[in-house]
Amino acid sequence: MAIITLTTDFGEKDYFAGATKGAIYSELPDVKIVDISHSVSPFNIPEAAYIIQNAFRSFPKGTIHIIGIDSEINPENQHIAVKLDDHYFICANNGIMSMICKEIVPEKIVEINIHDKIQTSFPVLDVFVKVACHIARGGTLDVIGKSIPEIKPIKNIVPYVNDDKTQIIGSVIYIDNYGNVVTNIKQSFFETLQKGRDFKISARNYTFKKIYQKYSDFVNFEIPENKRNDEGRKLVVFNSGGFLEIAVYKSNSETFGSASTLLGLRLMDSVSVNFINIPIIPKGKDIPQNISNVDDF
Amino acid sequence: MAIITLTTDFGEKDYFAGATKGAIYSELPDVKIVDISHSVSPFNIPEAAYIIQNAFRSFPKGTIHIIGIDSEINPENQHIAVKLDDHYFICANNGIMSMICKEIVPEKIVEINIHDKIQTSFPVLDVFVKVACHIARGGTLDVIGKSIPEIKPIKNIVPYVNDDKTQIIGSVIYIDNYGNVVTNIKQSFFETLQKGRDFKISARNYTFKKIYQKYSDFVNFEIPENKRNDEGRKLVVFNSGGFLEIAVYKSNSETFGSASTLLGLRLMDSVSVNFINIPIIPKGKDIPQNISNVDDF
Amino acid sequence: MAIITLTTDFGEKDYFAGATKGAIYSELPDVKIVDISHSVSPFNIPEAAYIIQNAFRSFPKGTIHIIGIDSEINPENQHIAVKLDDHYFICANNGIMSMICKEIVPEKIVEINIHDKIQTSFPVLDVFVKVACHIARGGTLDVIGKSIPEIKPIKNIVPYVNDDKTQIIGSVIYIDNYGNVVTNIKQSFFETLQKGRDFKISARNYTFKKIYQKYSDFVNFEIPENKRNDEGRKLVVFNSGGFLEIAVYKSNSETFGSASTLLGLRLMDSVSVNFINIPIIPKGKDIPQNISNVDDF
Repeated sequence: MAIITLTTDFGEKDYFAGATKGAIYSELPDVKIVDISHSVSPFNIPEAAYIIQNAFRSFPKGTIHIIGIDSEINPENQHIAVKLDDHYFICANNGIMSMICKEIVPEKIVEINIHDKIQTSFPVLDVFVKVACHIARGGTLDVIGKSIPEIKPIKNIVPYVNDDKTQIIGSVIYIDNYGNVVTNIKQSFFETLQKGRDFKISARNYTFKKIYQKYSDFVNFEIPENKRNDEGRKLVVFNSGGFLEIAVYKSNSETFGSASTLLGLRLMDSVSVNFINIPIIPKGKDIPQNISNVDDF
Repeated sequence: MAIITLTTDFGEKDYFAGATKGAIYSELPDVKIVDISHSVSPFNIPEAAYIIQNAFRSFPKGTIHIIGIDSEINPENQHIAVKLDDHYFICANNGIMSMICKEIVPEKIVEINIHDKIQTSFPVLDVFVKVACHIARGGTLDVIGKSIPEIKPIKNIVPYVNDDKTQIIGSVIYIDNYGNVVTNIKQSFFETLQKGRDFKISARNYTFKKIYQKYSDFVNFEIPENKRNDEGRKLVVFNSGGFLEIAVYKSNSETFGSASTLLGLRLMDSVSVNFINIPIIPKGKDIPQNISNVDDF
Repeated sequence: MAIITLTTDFGEKDYFAGATKGAIYSELPDVKIVDISHSVSPFNIPEAAYIIQNAFRSFPKGTIHIIGIDSEINPENQHIAVKLDDHYFICANNGIMSMICKEIVPEKIVEINIHDKIQTSFPVLDVFVKVACHIARGGTLDVIGKSIPEIKPIKNIVPYVNDDKTQIIGSVIYIDNYGNVVTNIKQSFFETLQKGRDFKISARNYTFKKIYQKYSDFVNFEIPENKRNDEGRKLVVFNSGGFLEIAVYKSNSETFGSASTLLGLRLMDSVSVNFINIPIIPKGKDIPQNISNVDDF
């Protein structure tokens, strides 16, 4: 049976998420409903785009994703359904899908037109649920909308690169539960530009010269734990979504703080990468690993 | 298979909700459990009443709703099970059901008496789960309790109306995730009293002369987006539950604020409606739409 | 079909929990996934230990519990799978299991070794899900790891008792959604030491001489409700998990406060019990109830 996921800014308290699940089960008693997140900041489209992009890949093909952020229909905000990588997405055409569509070309995009007569202030319940259940029953997108060629983009999805490709200027797109600061610089993008060069990552007054594969990789486990003083150390990783992230080891905002609080980084703040030199690689030698160069921060 | 929903003030962190679900699955492996909300403010009965009233309608007939707020049994707080509109509700007799029962007459109310020997500080787990599973297996209410004629009421469910019916004095019963302020004035109640008259809605220092059908209805989409300055505008709507709500368009408490913060409105604060005049309707003309009169706020 | 539960510090917003559920359904479409908590404080092992200990008992035998707290693998933090009381637990060997294992001897503990080649900063997704699905399909622990004799302990699990057994010094291990303060003093432990003696419980400047069975047990319901002034009263109970808890009746941190705020008690603060005298029990008389002695606080 189909899976329908929910990603919304409904919060944890209100009846909206509960009512939505009730409406789905009323139409399809055997479907599986999975909450991805109801705690997206209100109307925060980039946050929702980041969350759904990183969550959807883990679900089986055929999963239907309802995204309920800024979804009231009006002349500037139409409803769409997108088929992409054998997943279905139902949302407003407000840029939420632009992050995913940057990486994977959609198979089909339709502008939903089933609701000519539906006047509603709760479109997730009254429109998205109907579309999701239609798809879950095997219905096609053509029945519920007309094809459109592309979706509305949002800004700040792609970092800026200067002309001689010595600098990336990215920005903070997400701050996670640990206060770790996620930028819009993807690992693949970084490595394509890096070409083996050393680099310096700058955020506020801090600089980093190394990117780790996981959070504890910088720890020297040969030193006894009580002599190491590791907790609270700042580092840079490519996170599990493949994004460059400024993190704090075992961060805890109530004790020694998080990357966001310690570095004073907020959404939309810029994080830059400067590539320093092109190493001359002697013949016969291996190209140095692109992530783990120079000395530590 | 039956659906059992959970509405509690357990919060998102504690083991209470998890343990409750485990206990249900231990009795009924195939039941569906749906979280409506675990973030009701502690012991806040009106909040819980509002949430369950608006969520339950979306669920299929036969759904069983466990409401775990202020549910410790004592001489003043008995446990009840209510059948209403082919839904079942299990809760304490502390007023939570009075909002729903105001609108729909219960088919049956029983005071639960299965727990003569159950000494517990966790009645949801030790009593409500047992009752819910009994009902889910097709058991009747008569087996688990004795019929009582009515439930305990709570205050502030119905707004005050003056004698000559020119004024409604309602109160704030809920503040949602967007900071929108929900009153106890229902659309049907409002329209019955309005009889086509103009009106003025007052809350603190603000007045409104119009009620919208959805949040973006006041926007003039003929003006380009960057010249409109819509975000953060205050407006009044009948929300998806049919309640008069003071809202802020695309509210965001971290940037330009929400209805609750901008107007300084809190739970129990009063919101009044004054009906201004009785329009003389010329013969042959249609009665004006009752929601969209006069000029804008 | 098997049940897999999730207890993590992922928070309610991030994509981590959603992605984990997607990965499980991708492997096992018919499994049931139950969220126990995603709101454990970041890296807070005692909190997670308390939550899982109290939640797991309610689930059916055979349930598989994924605990995702501080789970990045490194030389000091290996992954384990534990079979105990016919439940399975998958987590890091960081002390999370020591609270449960204090009470029930594990049938088997293995150190997971399936991930020699898995480099990951998201071990719950990339390792724990695989192990959980292996177990859910009926696989044995021997296939995914090698047996180890014991798990890593954490401190503060067991309260201190003085030599002549007149004093217990416990500590606060958890503060719940109502602000109630849970100590590490279990009812069985308390009663074994008490042997019918009177006692005085001290926390900060407050003392208590009585332990209640449920929160409203101290209320005198013969006095009319509006003359009682019960709300906000401090009391001591053994909570539903069997732990000594300092509570406030109908606590509400926004109005009259909670046990944590009113008494100024935080995690790790100490709470002591002093046993006062050994009562001489006349022959033929019953031993006094061990919980309900002396006068009220």
